[in-house]
Amino acid sequence: MLRIVLCAAAILGCISAQEPQGHVSVILLGATGDLAKKYLWQGLFQLYLDEAGNGHSFSFHGAALTAPEQAQQLIAHALEKLSCPSDVPPERCAQLKGQFLRLNQYRQLQTAEDYATLNKDIEARLQQEGRPESGRIFYFSVPAFAYASIAQHINSSCRPGPGAWLRVVLEKPFGHDRRSAQELSKELGTFFREEEMYRVDHYLGKQAVAQILPFRDQNQNALDRLWSRHHVDRVEIVMKETVDADGRTSFYEEYGVIRDVIQNHLTEILTYVAMELPRNLSDPEELLRCKLQTFRALRSPGKGSAVLGQYQAYSGQVQKELQKPAGFMSLTPTFAGVLLQLDSLRWEGVPFILMSGKALDERVGYVRIVFKNRAYCTQSESSRDPGKSRCQPRQIIFYIGHGALGSPAVLVSRNLFKPSLPAGSWRELEEMPGLHLFGQQLADFHAYRPWQERDAYSVLISHIFHRRKDSFITTENLLASWDVWTPLLDSIAQEVPRLYPGGAANEHLLDFEQEGSQVVFVQREAEQLVSGPGSGPMPRDFSILRAKFRESPLVSAWPEELIARLGSDIEAVAERAVRRSGEFHLALSGGASPVALFQRLATRHYSFPWGHTHLWLVDERCVPLTDPESNFQGLHIHLLQHIRVPYCNIHPMPVHLHQRLCVEEDQGAELYAKDIAALVTNSSFDLVLLGMGTDGHTASLFPHSPSGLEGDKLVVLTESPAKPHQRMSLSLPLINRAKKVAVLVMGKRKKDIALLVSRVGREPKKWPISGVLPTSGQLVWYMDYDAFLG
Amino acid sequence: MLRIVLCAAAILGCISAQEPQGHVSVILLGATGDLAKKYLWQGLFQLYLDEAGNGHSFSFHGAALTAPEQAQQLIAHALEKLSCPSDVPPERCAQLKGQFLRLNQYRQLQTAEDYATLNKDIEARLQQEGRPESGRIFYFSVPAFAYASIAQHINSSCRPGPGAWLRVVLEKPFGHDRRSAQELSKELGTFFREEEMYRVDHYLGKQAVAQILPFRDQNQNALDRLWSRHHVDRVEIVMKETVDADGRTSFYEEYGVIRDVIQNHLTEILTYVAMELPRNLSDPEELLRCKLQTFRALRSPGKGSAVLGQYQAYSGQVQKELQKPAGFMSLTPTFAGVLLQLDSLRWEGVPFILMSGKALDERVGYVRIVFKNRAYCTQSESSRDPGKSRCQPRQIIFYIGHGALGSPAVLVSRNLFKPSLPAGSWRELEEMPGLHLFGQQLADFHAYRPWQERDAYSVLISHIFHRRKDSFITTENLLASWDVWTPLLDSIAQEVPRLYPGGAANEHLLDFEQEGSQVVFVQREAEQLVSGPGSGPMPRDFSILRAKFRESPLVSAWPEELIARLGSDIEAVAERAVRRSGEFHLALSGGASPVALFQRLATRHYSFPWGHTHLWLVDERCVPLTDPESNFQGLHIHLLQHIRVPYCNIHPMPVHLHQRLCVEEDQGAELYAKDIAALVTNSSFDLVLLGMGTDGHTASLFPHSPSGLEGDKLVVLTESPAKPHQRMSLSLPLINRAKKVAVLVMGKRKKDIALLVSRVGREPKKWPISGVLPTSGQLVWYMDYDAFLG
Repeated sequence: MLRIVLCAAAILGCISAQEPQGHVSVILLGATGDLAKKYLWQGLFQLYLDEAGNGHSFSFHGAALTAPEQAQQLIAHALEKLSCPSDVPPERCAQLKGQFLRLNQYRQLQTAEDYATLNKDIEARLQQEGRPESGRIFYFSVPAFAYASIAQHINSSCRPGPGAWLRVVLEKPFGHDRRSAQELSKELGTFFREEEMYRVDHYLGKQAVAQILPFRDQNQNALDRLWSRHHVDRVEIVMKETVDADGRTSFYEEYGVIRDVIQNHLTEILTYVAMELPRNLSDPEELLRCKLQTFRALRSPGKGSAVLGQYQAYSGQVQKELQKPAGFMSLTPTFAGVLLQLDSLRWEGVPFILMSGKALDERVGYVRIVFKNRAYCTQSESSRDPGKSRCQPRQIIFYIGHGALGSPAVLVSRNLFKPSLPAGSWRELEEMPGLHLFGQQLADFHAYRPWQERDAYSVLISHIFHRRKDSFITTENLLASWDVWTPLLDSIAQEVPRLYPGGAANEHLLDFEQEGSQVVFVQREAEQLVSGPGSGPMPRDFSILRAKFRESPLVSAWPEELIARLGSDIEAVAERAVRRSGEFHLALSGGASPVALFQRLATRHYSFPWGHTHLWLVDERCVPLTDPESNFQGLHIHLLQHIRVPYCNIHPMPVHLHQRLCVEEDQGAELYAKDIAALVTNSSFDLVLLGMGTDGHTASLFPHSPSGLEGDKLVVLTESPAKPHQRMSLSLPLINRAKKVAVLVMGKRKKDIALLVSRVGREPKKWPISGVLPTSGQLVWYMDYDAFLG
Repeated sequence: MLRIVLCAAAILGCISAQEPQGHVSVILLGATGDLAKKYLWQGLFQLYLDEAGNGHSFSFHGAALTAPEQAQQLIAHALEKLSCPSDVPPERCAQLKGQFLRLNQYRQLQTAEDYATLNKDIEARLQQEGRPESGRIFYFSVPAFAYASIAQHINSSCRPGPGAWLRVVLEKPFGHDRRSAQELSKELGTFFREEEMYRVDHYLGKQAVAQILPFRDQNQNALDRLWSRHHVDRVEIVMKETVDADGRTSFYEEYGVIRDVIQNHLTEILTYVAMELPRNLSDPEELLRCKLQTFRALRSPGKGSAVLGQYQAYSGQVQKELQKPAGFMSLTPTFAGVLLQLDSLRWEGVPFILMSGKALDERVGYVRIVFKNRAYCTQSESSRDPGKSRCQPRQIIFYIGHGALGSPAVLVSRNLFKPSLPAGSWRELEEMPGLHLFGQQLADFHAYRPWQERDAYSVLISHIFHRRKDSFITTENLLASWDVWTPLLDSIAQEVPRLYPGGAANEHLLDFEQEGSQVVFVQREAEQLVSGPGSGPMPRDFSILRAKFRESPLVSAWPEELIARLGSDIEAVAERAVRRSGEFHLALSGGASPVALFQRLATRHYSFPWGHTHLWLVDERCVPLTDPESNFQGLHIHLLQHIRVPYCNIHPMPVHLHQRLCVEEDQGAELYAKDIAALVTNSSFDLVLLGMGTDGHTASLFPHSPSGLEGDKLVVLTESPAKPHQRMSLSLPLINRAKKVAVLVMGKRKKDIALLVSRVGREPKKWPISGVLPTSGQLVWYMDYDAFLG
């Protein structure tokens, strides 16, 4: 404690003892609002306490739209409650508050003239003090819709003179999605330069959050080995509230929990945990670079990556506050659990769980890094010393506040390592006997708390003053975050959140768990079993139909079952082929339909003999193999990269030879045919998977194609009516040499052609698909109900 | 209980009530030995109780080398202790024992005549009974060295007549390593057919072990989703003993813990857990197929996959029992923890920990499958119901016996699912308040134990009688297991085990943990700091030397540091290249030296820009790319399969065109040169990694090579003095166009050529390596101390 006391005393003792420096004007816009009352005035007072002794002179301007009398009363009320650090004696504190109040002035800012007057007053004060101007801070504690006009006024009337800086401080919401955030940024960008804008995410001022990067930096020796998918089991980033949105629904109804806290606070924290450690933590550009790299590695969460809830009273509150009709049901989530994953070598496969909600059982915020247990303890459980045993949980927790500890803290399991924290600002936490946290006794942790708790806004206001841009959200950072979240927000806009009673009564109702790349509630909802009139048949109403289609076997089912069945059938064929000949030659089509199949094969078929499988393409678009339009690329993304097919068993079509695409004389088709002839016995694939287009095409064999429908050629170049026009394709005669051909047809769009094709004879010129009929092999149709029954 | 009682009563009540069937002779060889006394006589008695009522007649022949009087006394002693199932009244039991004893006869079996007499006696008995012969069981409870002569005698004198079966039962050890096991099997194979041999692994008769596959089968619905790397965190297979090897060191000293229990018992259990579930559990052929598939998927553990210990008293015991000289130190491990991993889609990445040891703190055996925690529980810890919470541990335990439970059991965490077990043989375990097992209360498990505990030998003897070969070790199975273990056993033969005091005093001394593909003790050993005379310098005695070699920078260090440094340097070059041009072109050499580098790059360089890296080969052997000798194959195994380089950025050398290898007119070299020219700006690689041969060759450019040392060609075909002779190689002029060239030279073998090359001028014809000097790029030598200092 000693050091802090001395330090605070030194500052307070030295006010105005320094060399005179310039003057700083702070204009707090929205000075009568809630945020100002709760945090900002106190933050400005703290700024004054910290900095006035260093030679600057200050003036503070509370501003609002309100008429002076009323506003001054409100502000006076807020200023009364200002407090000094606990070690300042009351008398001295009263004296300091008096000084601060004297520097303080209310001004109504409505019209352009108001701003011009403000500017004139500041200039007059500078003249009077005889000091140069250091700069001006405009703190926007106003609704976002007011930003533009205020910004315009400041830009046109209130910029400081040359040599002095302008800093405008912005509070969220920074838009509602990618588009609106970009518009707002663009608009602000017409008035301010990037370096003039300080977008506040006040979580970055919270002591435990601000400690994440320094902690990683100072404990690099220990963490280097641990900070990766090899050791981290999962990361939880959590902000639980007990309060609900009562009284704030006009804001909340528009934003919901993800926009309110997850897209910003929790996502920012995630970047601090996941980013590659910048070499210089205080270099905002390097920090931003590392952050943006992390955002790029973040997989944008799909619809299934979130579970949503809403406390039961919410819709009623909205109804009342926003005058909605009786029976109004809001879809706004007040609870969300989201799974994020990173595509980076360091974090691949590690789940980042972001969770927040209102009306939960406790108020608490934390980041919890749980390490894998990779130890085996030979001693029986009863005789292990938990402090030493590697078999106890191993975790690092940045405890943001509230909850059982009641203060920010950093906790490191004793069986991990003894961390180093700056002794001047963090001290060991006193024992709290009986306290159980995250599955361990408090005594099982090295636990630290700040010597002095500092409010996040005080911290951030100090950073603004010191131009520490690393604690603020740049435009790039903001848009990168919206890039991640907007698709999810769009996709869940119509999703019905699970209702929860609120508080401890939630019990396990909101518990959720990861399943693959999704999260689901652990307690599955009772399904709505009574379907209303006009509701379609449900999957369980049908079993797989077995019938004939064009005189070949037909398997029909709902999509998921159909894909499951096709997957099993392919595996069975593969197993037989490998048993018979040691190899399985599989030719796959591109396009959308097989994607679900590829994903299923990649994740569910554990004993598929990939090591003995050769993968061929049925057709390819004449684009480089790395092009997103390339069939090979789709195959790579959805299947190849997840399984272990030997490199040399993968046979992309050679559409790109001699740096050009599908040029006849490069003989790509002939080359592929040669490869097939050399590797596939009798050029007879074990299985060919085809699709069917709405025009009756299959592979890349289109109606009236001059090549590929007959003749000796095994592989041909063709023309598609759709872009990219040039294609390479297996020929119909080659396809018909296969031992088995499966045609997968899915979706309502295919219904008409399916009906037509069911009736026509063999007319490959008109409908190439009708020419598919293996000479001595088997043909099976796999059609979902949408395509088959419509 | 009801059902069992009825069942046992039915059997006992019905002895000799069935239709007469044939006669079965059981010959127990080693009838006076320990195993016979402890288990086998009881097992045979149980066989009699179970089967005599079903119409067979039996005769039992205790056999040994011992003279009749002494042996009969020993056997009588053993037979006195026979016990009936608990529900048989004492009088009835005495009656049944009397019947069994009357069917029992001792015979000395030493000479060929003894066996001939045995055969004659059996035939006489058959005649006397007037029954046909069913078969003969020869149970070998004798040391393995006696197997061959006994087998020969049986084969020549004691085979039953036509229509009757012969079953010989063999007890481990089945060899000492792959070679000896194969020899023994081959020898036995000259006397017996595979189906006549029953190799006992008595763990397969233990009730909890025998329940693993039926459990997996009967709970498929729940397990299908869980039984894979996606859900299983780890598997522990453990057999802890409190006894030591005192009195058995003559056996133990030769075998040690891995051969004694891990290669057989624990590995067999592993296959039960890991195998693909056979469709028909009782089909021994399908079971064997699934087992062998599992063995093939098992990565043979390397030296670092095991931690070894020896209880402190062991060497003294050996010294005493085997008359070793004073101060004798044994290297035989009495404790081992081994990490096994499977290369299968189902189990990749899941650690299987096999652990066993003597003189530990408790006697217990179990298989523990721990599931990943993928749940987030929203409710605070204190208010969770452990039975429902997904955040409690989730595990399945097959408890083999002893330990806190004191009986076999199957435990399934309640938050997993309620398992189905055969109600006739398993029942719910009664509460044992306060019992804590594997981090949970007993009440947190669905817990089952057998209605009736059965000794493993009784079970197996019954299986032998019923020809249930699925509980025994076939020759293929045995050799597959030795294939896995022999390399590890060879590699640790000279390793010094960690000494441990024994019992509870071991504390955390033997705890170990996984690090990558290795395991290490958690408590690192105090290093032997005082090195004796002649001991070499230790890594920490040196820091990296910086000097010049052939006027280019030299980095020299111990191998691990050298590789670490080279890895970092490559990453730095890669980052710069990607920042500059968006791409990094890296050309890599094959051979042994770079393997450690590849592995390091694969596992330690999280931010390496692989997505923007193109990988080229410096040289290639003219073999198919899938050949183990192919440089590409080495690169694939050690690097490519672990990282995510886009398929199209991988550039193997086209040594295999038109189904032939390196034929001049196929223009493979020209093709590669064209690819390089097209993709690599100025054909100037960002980095080329070379090695140096003992003859001064580099890449595949050998002394006096007619091509590649000068001229315009970028890629050339060359001849190596070593097999395979034909090679493809980047040319010296192409290498010298690189922006950076790193030459990695490691190992004592390279010392002489390194010394030579340090002195010669630029004479590429004589020493191709001397021609490496980038025109405008940089050359750096990376040499380990062995190569540089010798």
